[in-house]
Amino acid sequence: MIVRPHQHWFLRLFDWHGSVLSSIVFRLSLNLLMSVAAIIGYPWYSTFGIHLTTAPFSLIGVSIAIFLGFRNNASYARFIEARTLWGNMHITQRSLLRQIKCLRGISEAQVQEFIGLQLAFSWALKHRLRETDAKADLARLLPEKWHNAVLGHPMPTSQTLLCMGEWLAQRRDEGLVSDIVWQSIDENLSHLSAYLGGCDRLAGTPIPFAYSLILHRTVYLFCTLLPFALVADLHLMTPLVSVFISYTFLSLESLAEELEDPFGTAPNHLPLDALCVNIERNLKAMNNDFPLPEPHQPDKHFNLT
Amino acid sequence: MIVRPHQHWFLRLFDWHGSVLSSIVFRLSLNLLMSVAAIIGYPWYSTFGIHLTTAPFSLIGVSIAIFLGFRNNASYARFIEARTLWGNMHITQRSLLRQIKCLRGISEAQVQEFIGLQLAFSWALKHRLRETDAKADLARLLPEKWHNAVLGHPMPTSQTLLCMGEWLAQRRDEGLVSDIVWQSIDENLSHLSAYLGGCDRLAGTPIPFAYSLILHRTVYLFCTLLPFALVADLHLMTPLVSVFISYTFLSLESLAEELEDPFGTAPNHLPLDALCVNIERNLKAMNNDFPLPEPHQPDKHFNLT
Amino acid sequence: MIVRPHQHWFLRLFDWHGSVLSSIVFRLSLNLLMSVAAIIGYPWYSTFGIHLTTAPFSLIGVSIAIFLGFRNNASYARFIEARTLWGNMHITQRSLLRQIKCLRGISEAQVQEFIGLQLAFSWALKHRLRETDAKADLARLLPEKWHNAVLGHPMPTSQTLLCMGEWLAQRRDEGLVSDIVWQSIDENLSHLSAYLGGCDRLAGTPIPFAYSLILHRTVYLFCTLLPFALVADLHLMTPLVSVFISYTFLSLESLAEELEDPFGTAPNHLPLDALCVNIERNLKAMNNDFPLPEPHQPDKHFNLT
Amino acid sequence: MIVRPHQHWFLRLFDWHGSVLSSIVFRLSLNLLMSVAAIIGYPWYSTFGIHLTTAPFSLIGVSIAIFLGFRNNASYARFIEARTLWGNMHITQRSLLRQIKCLRGISEAQVQEFIGLQLAFSWALKHRLRETDAKADLARLLPEKWHNAVLGHPMPTSQTLLCMGEWLAQRRDEGLVSDIVWQSIDENLSHLSAYLGGCDRLAGTPIPFAYSLILHRTVYLFCTLLPFALVADLHLMTPLVSVFISYTFLSLESLAEELEDPFGTAPNHLPLDALCVNIERNLKAMNNDFPLPEPHQPDKHFNLT
Amino acid sequence: MIVRPHQHWFLRLFDWHGSVLSSIVFRLSLNLLMSVAAIIGYPWYSTFGIHLTTAPFSLIGVSIAIFLGFRNNASYARFIEARTLWGNMHITQRSLLRQIKCLRGISEAQVQEFIGLQLAFSWALKHRLRETDAKADLARLLPEKWHNAVLGHPMPTSQTLLCMGEWLAQRRDEGLVSDIVWQSIDENLSHLSAYLGGCDRLAGTPIPFAYSLILHRTVYLFCTLLPFALVADLHLMTPLVSVFISYTFLSLESLAEELEDPFGTAPNHLPLDALCVNIERNLKAMNNDFPLPEPHQPDKHFNLT
Repeated sequence: MIVRPHQHWFLRLFDWHGSVLSSIVFRLSLNLLMSVAAIIGYPWYSTFGIHLTTAPFSLIGVSIAIFLGFRNNASYARFIEARTLWGNMHITQRSLLRQIKCLRGISEAQVQEFIGLQLAFSWALKHRLRETDAKADLARLLPEKWHNAVLGHPMPTSQTLLCMGEWLAQRRDEGLVSDIVWQSIDENLSHLSAYLGGCDRLAGTPIPFAYSLILHRTVYLFCTLLPFALVADLHLMTPLVSVFISYTFLSLESLAEELEDPFGTAPNHLPLDALCVNIERNLKAMNNDFPLPEPHQPDKHFNLT
Repeated sequence: MIVRPHQHWFLRLFDWHGSVLSSIVFRLSLNLLMSVAAIIGYPWYSTFGIHLTTAPFSLIGVSIAIFLGFRNNASYARFIEARTLWGNMHITQRSLLRQIKCLRGISEAQVQEFIGLQLAFSWALKHRLRETDAKADLARLLPEKWHNAVLGHPMPTSQTLLCMGEWLAQRRDEGLVSDIVWQSIDENLSHLSAYLGGCDRLAGTPIPFAYSLILHRTVYLFCTLLPFALVADLHLMTPLVSVFISYTFLSLESLAEELEDPFGTAPNHLPLDALCVNIERNLKAMNNDFPLPEPHQPDKHFNLT
Repeated sequence: MIVRPHQHWFLRLFDWHGSVLSSIVFRLSLNLLMSVAAIIGYPWYSTFGIHLTTAPFSLIGVSIAIFLGFRNNASYARFIEARTLWGNMHITQRSLLRQIKCLRGISEAQVQEFIGLQLAFSWALKHRLRETDAKADLARLLPEKWHNAVLGHPMPTSQTLLCMGEWLAQRRDEGLVSDIVWQSIDENLSHLSAYLGGCDRLAGTPIPFAYSLILHRTVYLFCTLLPFALVADLHLMTPLVSVFISYTFLSLESLAEELEDPFGTAPNHLPLDALCVNIERNLKAMNNDFPLPEPHQPDKHFNLT
Repeated sequence: MIVRPHQHWFLRLFDWHGSVLSSIVFRLSLNLLMSVAAIIGYPWYSTFGIHLTTAPFSLIGVSIAIFLGFRNNASYARFIEARTLWGNMHITQRSLLRQIKCLRGISEAQVQEFIGLQLAFSWALKHRLRETDAKADLARLLPEKWHNAVLGHPMPTSQTLLCMGEWLAQRRDEGLVSDIVWQSIDENLSHLSAYLGGCDRLAGTPIPFAYSLILHRTVYLFCTLLPFALVADLHLMTPLVSVFISYTFLSLESLAEELEDPFGTAPNHLPLDALCVNIERNLKAMNNDFPLPEPHQPDKHFNLT
Repeated sequence: MIVRPHQHWFLRLFDWHGSVLSSIVFRLSLNLLMSVAAIIGYPWYSTFGIHLTTAPFSLIGVSIAIFLGFRNNASYARFIEARTLWGNMHITQRSLLRQIKCLRGISEAQVQEFIGLQLAFSWALKHRLRETDAKADLARLLPEKWHNAVLGHPMPTSQTLLCMGEWLAQRRDEGLVSDIVWQSIDENLSHLSAYLGGCDRLAGTPIPFAYSLILHRTVYLFCTLLPFALVADLHLMTPLVSVFISYTFLSLESLAEELEDPFGTAPNHLPLDALCVNIERNLKAMNNDFPLPEPHQPDKHFNLT
C-alpha cells in the first residue's frame, strides 16, 4: 500500500512510483512504435483500400470502458473485502482481549498465554496468504505449551484457533468462565474462523479467468489497432492521442489485475506486515506490556508492505 | 474453475483454454462469412438504396454494452454468492468441530460420528447441486447408525442436517451439552441450513429468462448486421473490425450465461469437488486424523472441478 | 417464472413465450408504421426545413440506456430481494422444525400441530401477496384448535405467527422448552415476522412512480421520433434498424416494469405456488409424513406459477 | 407516495400528477424560449464566427448522464433505506408485541400500556422527521403514567424508548420476565433505537451538497446551451428535440433531489402517516382491540402521505 | 458538512461556497488560457499538419466519465460508511445507557461515571481521526478514577473501551449485573470496538493510490488538450465549451478526492464536532442532566464541522 502525504495537484501529475506506470511502460512504447508505423505507412497502405475510421473504434472503445468499469468494480470490491476482513480481525482480537481481561480470578500468565495465541493466529494467517514460512513467527509468539500442537501441524492457522478454543475450555473447567461468558467469547472465536475462511476464499478463487482474458485481449487489440484508426484524422498528432488513450485503458486494466489478489507485496497491495504489527501493538498496550514493537513505516517511495 | 499460474501478458493474449472462445468460434465464423458477403455484395445492393451507416449502430452498440454490463453484474453476483455460501460452509463446519472438540467428556467415537455427518452434508449438497448420485459418497462418509435415516430418504441433505440436530440432542440428554452450549451449536446448524437454502435458491431461480433472451437476441442481431454497417467505411478491413467487435460482445454474453449457473462443471464454474475435499482435509486435520485425503489438482489445462 | 431446459443458442433466437415480446408487439407495429410514414413522407416534409439527424438521437439514446440500466437494476434488485425473502422463509421453517423435533418429551401430535401452523403461515403469505382468498388453504392446513383464532381474523398471516408464539409458550408452560431454547426458537419466529414485513414492503412500496413515468415517456417519445431521425441516412433500411432499436428499449422497459412487482403471475414473476409446495414437501419429509404432495411442474410453455 | 392502479401504457404517457413535471414546467418553458431565440438568432450570430456543434454536446451530455445516474442511485438508495427502516420498525413492533403477549401472568392493562408506548414511539418518530408537533399524538397514545416522563422532554422519541426499557425492567422486578426473556425483548428495543438513529442519520446528513450543486449547474448550463448546438442541424425541429432532451435531464435531476430527503410530503416521498396507521392497525388487531382505525387512502391524485 | 436551507433552483446556480469551485478555480483559469492559446495559435500550427479532432476526444471523454463514475462511487461509499459508523455509535451509546439505567440497585454516581466513559470514547475517537490532541476533552469528560488508566496511555480510545469493560465487570462483582445482562451489555461494547476499528480502517487505508493518480492525470491531460480539439469546430466558442466540460470533470474529480477521507474539516467532510455534541446531548437528556450543551450551529456559509 502506498501511504502518501498530501501532494500538490501539480506535482502529482509527475509522480512515478505511485502508479502502475512502470509495469506498462514497455507496452506503451509498443503503442508509440505502432503510431509511428501508422504515420509512415498510411500513404502506402491506404492505396490498397485498407483504411480504418474512428467511428467503430469509438463504439468499441466505450464498450470496453463499460466492461473495464465492471472489472475494476469487481477487483476493487475484493480489495475492500480483504481490507475489511483484516480490519474486523483487529476489532475481534481487541474485543476478545477485553472479555478475557475482565474475567475475575484469571492470572497474568494465562492472559499472556492467550495473547500469544491471538498474535500467532494473525501472523500465521499473514504467512498463509503470502505463502511464506510461518515457523519463525509462530515460534516467537506461541506460548511454549502450544508449540507441539501447532508447529508441526500442516494447517497452523486453523490449529491455533483450535488451541484458543481449548484454552477457553480449560478456563471453563477451572470455573473462571461460565457457560454464558463462554458463549460470548466462543462467538468471537467463530468470527476469527470466518476471517480465515474469507481470506482463503479471496486468495483461492480469483475473478473468473475468462473475464481477465477477454478484457486483456480486447484492450490490447484495441490499443494496437487504434493508431491506424486515428492516423487519417490526426496525422502527426496520432502518437500523442494514441498513447494517451492507451495509457488510460492499459493502466486501469493493469491496476485491476493487481488489485484482484490483494494479499501480495506489490505497491497497491494490502500492508499485511504493518497490520499484524498494529494488532500486536494494540493487544500489548491493552495489557500494559510496554515497550510496544515499533509500527512499520513506509519506505522512501511511501510503500508499506 | 481455472487456476492459472502467473502468465506473461504477451502469452496470455494467445491462451485458448482459458476463455470461452471455443464455445463461440462457430458464431464468429458466421460473422466472418457475413463480412465477406457484405464486401462482395456492397456494390450490388447499394444500388437499390439499401445502406446502413455506423451512427445508429454506435447508439445500439453502446446501449447493448450498458445492458450487457448489467447482465454481467447479475451473473457475477450469483457466482460470488455461490462461492461465498461454500466458503461460509467451510467456516461453519470448522467452528462446529471446534465447539464439539472442546466439550468435556465426549468420546472420540462420538466426535468421529459427528465429523461423518458434517462431511456427508457437504458432499450431499454437492451432489444435489450437480444432480449426481450421492449414494456412494453418503455410504462412505455416514456413520453406520445414521445410514437408515438418510440413505433411503428423498432429501438426504436436509435429512443429514436433522441427524446432526438429533446427535446434538442426544449429547444434551447425556448431560455433555448444557442449554447454552446447545444454543451456540444449534445456531451453527441453522447456518448450515441457510447455506443449503441459499444454494437451492441460486440453482432453482435463474436470472429472469427474458433478460437472457432479450440480450441474446439483440447481441446476435447486432453482430449479424454490423458488417453491413461497417463496409461502406472500412471496405477490406470490415472482417477484422467486425470480428473484433463481435468477439467482445459474444464472449461476454457467453461468459455471463456460463456464470449464471455456477454449480456446473464448465471451466468457469465453481470447483465443488475440490471444495468438498478441502473441508474434509480441514476437519480431519483438526481431529489429527492423518493421513489426509490428497487435495484435488488442476488438470493440464489448469481446470479444477 | 420460466424454467427452460437448456436451449441451443440458435433456437433461442426464435423463442416466443420466454420474452416479453407478446406485450410489446402492438407498440413495435406502431413503430414499423411510423418508419413507413417516415420513408414516404421524407421527400415532402423535408422541403419545409423539417429534418432530424442521428447525432442528438445518439445522445438521448445513450442517456436513456443509462437511466434504463438504473431502472433495470432497481427492478431486478426487488425481484432478487423477494426471492431471497422466500428462500430464507424456507430455511427458517426448516430450522424451526429441526429445533422442535429435537425437543425431548414432545408428542407427535404437537409436532403435527406446529407443522400445520408453519404451512398455514407460508400459504397465507402467498395469498396475501397475490390478493387471493386464503380461506380454503388455511382451513386445510391449520390445526382445528387454531381455526377460531385465525380464520375470522382480518390479518390471518400476522395472526398465525402469533399462534406459533402461543404454541411455544404452551410448551414452555409444560416444561418442554427452557428459557434458552425458547430464545432460540423465538428468534426464528421473529425471522418469519421479518419475511412477512419484507414482502409487505416490496408489495406496498413500488419504485417511485415518477421514475416509471419519466422513463416510460422518454422511451416512447424516443422510439416514435427515431424513424424520422434515421430515414435521411438509411432510407429503405429505416424500418429494420428502427424496430431493432425500439425492440431493445421497449422490451427492457417492459421487463423492468414486470419485475418491479415480483409477486404476480406473469411469466417472469416468482413461482409462489411452487415455493409453497416445496416448503410443504420439505417439512413433511422431515417428519416422515409420506406420501409428499407432488411438486409443481412447469406448463408446456415452461411457465411455473 | 403515489399508489396508482394499473394504467394502460398509452394513458400513462399523459399522466400529469404522477411525474415531477409540474415542478420543472417553468424551466422547460425557458428552454423552449431559448430554442426559439436560437432559431431566430442563428443567421445573425453565426456571421460572427459564433457556432456550436453537436459533437462536444454529445460528449458532455453522455458524461452528465453518467453522473446523473450516480446521483439517482445515491438518492434512490436513501429512499429505499428510509423505507426499509420503517418496514423494519413495523416488523420489530410486531415481534415485540408477540413476545409480550406470550409472557405468562401479564395483565391486559400492562399489555395495553406497552402497546401505547410502542405506538407513541412510531408517531413521535414521524413528527420528528417531518418537524411537526408530536404533542397531540403523544397525549392520545401514551398511557397516563408515562405522560410526565415524555411530554415535557426535549427528545420525546428517545425518551419513549427509555420508558419501554423501564416498563420491561418493572416486569423483570415482578418476576414475569426472566433474564433470558429480558435479553430477547431488550434486543428488540435496541433495534428500535437503531431505526430512530438510522432515520436521524438520513434526515440530518444529505448527499454532500457539492454533488447536488455541480450536477444542478451542469444540467442547467447544458440545457441552456443545447438549442444553440442543435439549431445548425435541426432548424425548425430544434424546440422539439431540445425540450425532449431537457425534459429527460431536468426531470431526473429534479426527482433525484426530491427523493434525497424521503421524509417530506411531496408526491414521491414516503407515506409516513399511512405507515404509522398500518403499525397501529396491526398491533391493535394482534390484541383483538377492535374496531381498528381506518387505513389511510390515497387522494384523488393517488397521493398518499 | 454543508447544511443549507432550501434554496430556489435559480439562486443555487450561483452558490459559491457550497461547491468545490474555490479549489479548482486556478485550474479552470489555466484551461481558459489554453483555450485562448488554441484560438490564437490555430491558424499557425495547423499549417504544420498538427490538428486534433473531436471524435477521439469524445471516446476518451466518455471513458473517463465512466471511470470517474467508478471513483465517485468508491469515494461516496467511504463517506456513507463513515457517517453510518458514527450514526451507529450514537445508536449503541443510547442503547448502552438504556441498559445501564434499567439496572436495579445502581447508584446515580455509577451511571454518571459510565456516561463519562461513553462520552470520552466518542470525543477520543474524534480527536484520533482528526489527529488533534484529546487531552483537554478527556480530562473534562473522564471520571476522576479513570484518569490514570487513560490519560497517559498511548491509545486512549481503545483504553477507554477497556475501562468500560472493567466498569461492567465491577458491577458484575457487585451482583448488579447477571451473566446474561453482562452478555447483552458486553455485546454493545464490542460494537463500539467495531466502530473504532471501522473508522481506523477508513482513515488508514485510502482508495488504492494508483486510482487517484491515473484519473487525476487523465482528467488533467484531457482538459489541457481539449481546447485544441474543439477549436477547429467552435472557433470563438471554444473557451465557453472547454471551460464548461473541464468544470464538470475537474469538480467531480476534486470532490471525489475530498470525500475520500471524510474525517477532515473541509466543507464536504463529516461534522464530527456536531456529532459528538449530539451524542452528549442525547445521553445527558436521557439522564435528565439539564441544561444540555448547546448543539453546534452552521457558520454563515452553512458550514458545520
